[in-house]
Amino acid sequence: MITSTSNLQVKQLLQLQKKAKERNAQKVFVVEGPKMALEVPGEQLVQTYVSERFFEKNPIFFGEDRPVTVLSDRVFESVSDTRTPQGVLCIVRQYHYEAEELLGKHLAGTAGAPLIVALENLQDPGNLGTIVRTAEGAGVTGILLSQDCVDLYNPKVIRSTMGAIYRMPFYYADDFRQELRILQGKGVRLFAAHLEGSIPYDEETYCGSSGFLIGNESQGLTGETAALADARIRIPMCGRVESLNAAVAASVLMYEANRQRRKSTGKAGRG
Amino acid sequence: MITSTSNLQVKQLLQLQKKAKERNAQKVFVVEGPKMALEVPGEQLVQTYVSERFFEKNPIFFGEDRPVTVLSDRVFESVSDTRTPQGVLCIVRQYHYEAEELLGKHLAGTAGAPLIVALENLQDPGNLGTIVRTAEGAGVTGILLSQDCVDLYNPKVIRSTMGAIYRMPFYYADDFRQELRILQGKGVRLFAAHLEGSIPYDEETYCGSSGFLIGNESQGLTGETAALADARIRIPMCGRVESLNAAVAASVLMYEANRQRRKSTGKAGRG
Repeated sequence: MITSTSNLQVKQLLQLQKKAKERNAQKVFVVEGPKMALEVPGEQLVQTYVSERFFEKNPIFFGEDRPVTVLSDRVFESVSDTRTPQGVLCIVRQYHYEAEELLGKHLAGTAGAPLIVALENLQDPGNLGTIVRTAEGAGVTGILLSQDCVDLYNPKVIRSTMGAIYRMPFYYADDFRQELRILQGKGVRLFAAHLEGSIPYDEETYCGSSGFLIGNESQGLTGETAALADARIRIPMCGRVESLNAAVAASVLMYEANRQRRKSTGKAGRG
Repeated sequence: MITSTSNLQVKQLLQLQKKAKERNAQKVFVVEGPKMALEVPGEQLVQTYVSERFFEKNPIFFGEDRPVTVLSDRVFESVSDTRTPQGVLCIVRQYHYEAEELLGKHLAGTAGAPLIVALENLQDPGNLGTIVRTAEGAGVTGILLSQDCVDLYNPKVIRSTMGAIYRMPFYYADDFRQELRILQGKGVRLFAAHLEGSIPYDEETYCGSSGFLIGNESQGLTGETAALADARIRIPMCGRVESLNAAVAASVLMYEANRQRRKSTGKAGRG
């Protein structure tokens, strides 16, 4: 059992929790909690750490083929990113998708045509994680991100994905607009979510190859990116609300696409 | 200018930020930031505080008819609930709605029939604030909350509402299920958002008086509450996602109601 916070592994864990640079150098990220830990695909798992208390209560939680390193409760608390640590933490290999994979023809359970969400300068970790989670639910085939988005391997993002991080293809574009143009070249129709969008979102059709462009929480999409879209759409709002939360707006759009696709194919969604 | 954290007003501010009990005793709450401060309805405003730095940059930000109390930057930081304080903070009178007002016949911009969101044991402040914000946008007439929901006047909830707190009627029910039965007695059809819901949410109609029941983030609705609903609905999910974020699920439902109401009446939404 590791009982000192000056232990080298412990110091490294802290670095991985706090620094995107360190995570990218080592090509790993950290997940916390029993549920996230159980879902780690075997080939991605690097190492599992548990707290002393967790290990005493659940000595065979992971089975014999999955060794764990035990940390004293105090040491575990020092490396946990959560206020109430659940006692389990894994180092997981980062995913590396090609831009092509966002089109997702290999994915089961989607209605066929690509459905992409493209995020420009999204900053809030909770929003990004929630979008990844909803995206999987709605049958999105991949997520494109501009380089200035928050790091998808940030512990708060990971937590909000509730496991969708293991399954949703994503790609940080060196040149975001160039990548969008490539998608257009492949037949993806791009819809910019815009407060001055000319068309209510539910009057467009998303059954063909489609992509939603979602901008920064305060500024929205840049003018250049919005200009590139094939259409601008808006979510109508009652009252005096000026905008919706970015994850909510993205979710309403993704589920409208899901709804239309289910109507037209009878697929896209379990049960 | 107040320069000491042991000043009585400063101590009181801190109590109001941290304790629901104190807020309820004084029947006030705290809002932060220039935007939230400018939107406070005049009759609700108790007092405005600004930081020294904010006051120097914006000496006439609020106009002459609205006196401000200046706090030294250090003191302001000590009473702010945010990591990067924006230098403005107001004490605002709490709202007191009757349960009847959730039916919202007085509201302009809604499509007529009541649209209620009923929250049972919702715990995350960000989720509650986001639901209030989206609710206003979607034309919801009122929000019913069980007593064990997070406090709506929690600073994090307030922040996430982005001002909708000033306008959205809400009511904490002493007896949540009893209040739901009263709504049913008034012709409101109640839809329980449930993972084992038998009907995809978009196959029901929400143009008549409707209410959505949304449960706790981890446990969902209690069996008793779900049993009381007129119908159970589910949001279909692709992939291996087990559930959606509570605020996202609520938003998808609210905007499906908004979509249907716009289709049927041509109203419910600006522009």
